[in-house]
Amino acid sequence: MADPTRIWTAALIVIGDEILSGRTQDKNIAQIASWLNVQGIRLREVRVVPDVADAIVEAVNALRARNDYLFTTGGIGPTHDDITVDSIAQALDVDVVVHPQARAVLDAYYETRGGLTEARLRMARVPQGANLIENRMSGAPGIRLGNIFIMAGVPHITAGMLESLTGTLEGGLPLLSRTIGCWVAESEIADLLGRTEKAHDGCQIGSYPFFRDGRTGANFVIRSTDPAALDACTGDLTRALEEGGWPVTDGGI
Amino acid sequence: MADPTRIWTAALIVIGDEILSGRTQDKNIAQIASWLNVQGIRLREVRVVPDVADAIVEAVNALRARNDYLFTTGGIGPTHDDITVDSIAQALDVDVVVHPQARAVLDAYYETRGGLTEARLRMARVPQGANLIENRMSGAPGIRLGNIFIMAGVPHITAGMLESLTGTLEGGLPLLSRTIGCWVAESEIADLLGRTEKAHDGCQIGSYPFFRDGRTGANFVIRSTDPAALDACTGDLTRALEEGGWPVTDGGI
Repeated sequence: MADPTRIWTAALIVIGDEILSGRTQDKNIAQIASWLNVQGIRLREVRVVPDVADAIVEAVNALRARNDYLFTTGGIGPTHDDITVDSIAQALDVDVVVHPQARAVLDAYYETRGGLTEARLRMARVPQGANLIENRMSGAPGIRLGNIFIMAGVPHITAGMLESLTGTLEGGLPLLSRTIGCWVAESEIADLLGRTEKAHDGCQIGSYPFFRDGRTGANFVIRSTDPAALDACTGDLTRALEEGGWPVTDGGI
Repeated sequence: MADPTRIWTAALIVIGDEILSGRTQDKNIAQIASWLNVQGIRLREVRVVPDVADAIVEAVNALRARNDYLFTTGGIGPTHDDITVDSIAQALDVDVVVHPQARAVLDAYYETRGGLTEARLRMARVPQGANLIENRMSGAPGIRLGNIFIMAGVPHITAGMLESLTGTLEGGLPLLSRTIGCWVAESEIADLLGRTEKAHDGCQIGSYPFFRDGRTGANFVIRSTDPAALDACTGDLTRALEEGGWPVTDGGI
């Protein structure tokens, strides 16, 4: 059974000028965070860095040391701006080598697609000592080296890589959550939220206000690794809100 | 005229467990990045940190020192998990005070909404020495202190705050971009992209592959602060692709 006292953490480095320029809306943070929760691992911090080796090296070395796992997304394609593998090898002070299995995968993938060019062969390069992560969507595999997981930037390709990693990472108890919502200004019940959280050890209550159809509402997300504590906290918060005159919608509004 | 040799940079800290848990898809990175480009400022790095004071303090002190501007989003509401103001004050080693003008704004806003409670008054607290950023959408203002800009987490409120800052920040030349696209596997033209970029000083070419309707395509974003260089690079890349047999769609596919 997972050790309930051990919290496993991960960090994510999103690599790419396209995110920092605002051109592309990142979807990997939310996708990887949700997947990690189910593995019993908390996403603890994220950095978005440009396609610049020094920036990648700094982030890799800062984050791999203080987290159980480090994920990266982006920069593993065939073009000149894809420098993730080289930068991570530089951070770890290892060579970059062509991985024979990756080469075989790419050979097969490109057999009917014009053959394995020099540019395509770039996608078989890995930091020395790395293993591959299966890519069920397209040719180029992801890369695992120690506690570092090098993933694609395109979200649906990353999704496939996560699927092939599911259940293979050691984690703790999954972080459970319940959401309730009501039509209330969060400023009216701020004290109530704080008191309820304090009364339930190991539970966090997040408050997410919104404006919709000209009305003010808020959703409250209760999180805990302990199902009984989660139920008790959600029950207390629901009762307190309803006693205050704010009917609660289970699952959020 | 803006100094063309000076590159102005900004960093962004996204504060919130809701982003790290995967519950909420961040929209502020892309929104702030796009806005900064127009101001002639490059978003150079982003960190997403939890609602934990130490994590916020570390990120604030690392990023404010090495960028012209630092933006934060999230954690400025009335509830117990809103600790941005206190954490930034801690990072700067200044007190937290109630800003009289912020109090007046909130007083007016809540006059017809149940009055200014203690929880709501939390939103008038600022690090000592700070100025306010107008919030055209709801009551609580944003906060400016030196080169730090403390913004809301809810994207449309942040949008209003950005609007009121438009044109007030010193920047350099805006980063211009052109996008072209074609139905080609990026691995087929990786060399061509690298060569074209190298031939045009001050231009970057980003390559963004996609799969759609069972076909492989890519969009190419050419960026430069120099309109003439941008046109020349875009023209050369377009010609090279068309000569290779890949018709180009201006504006991207």
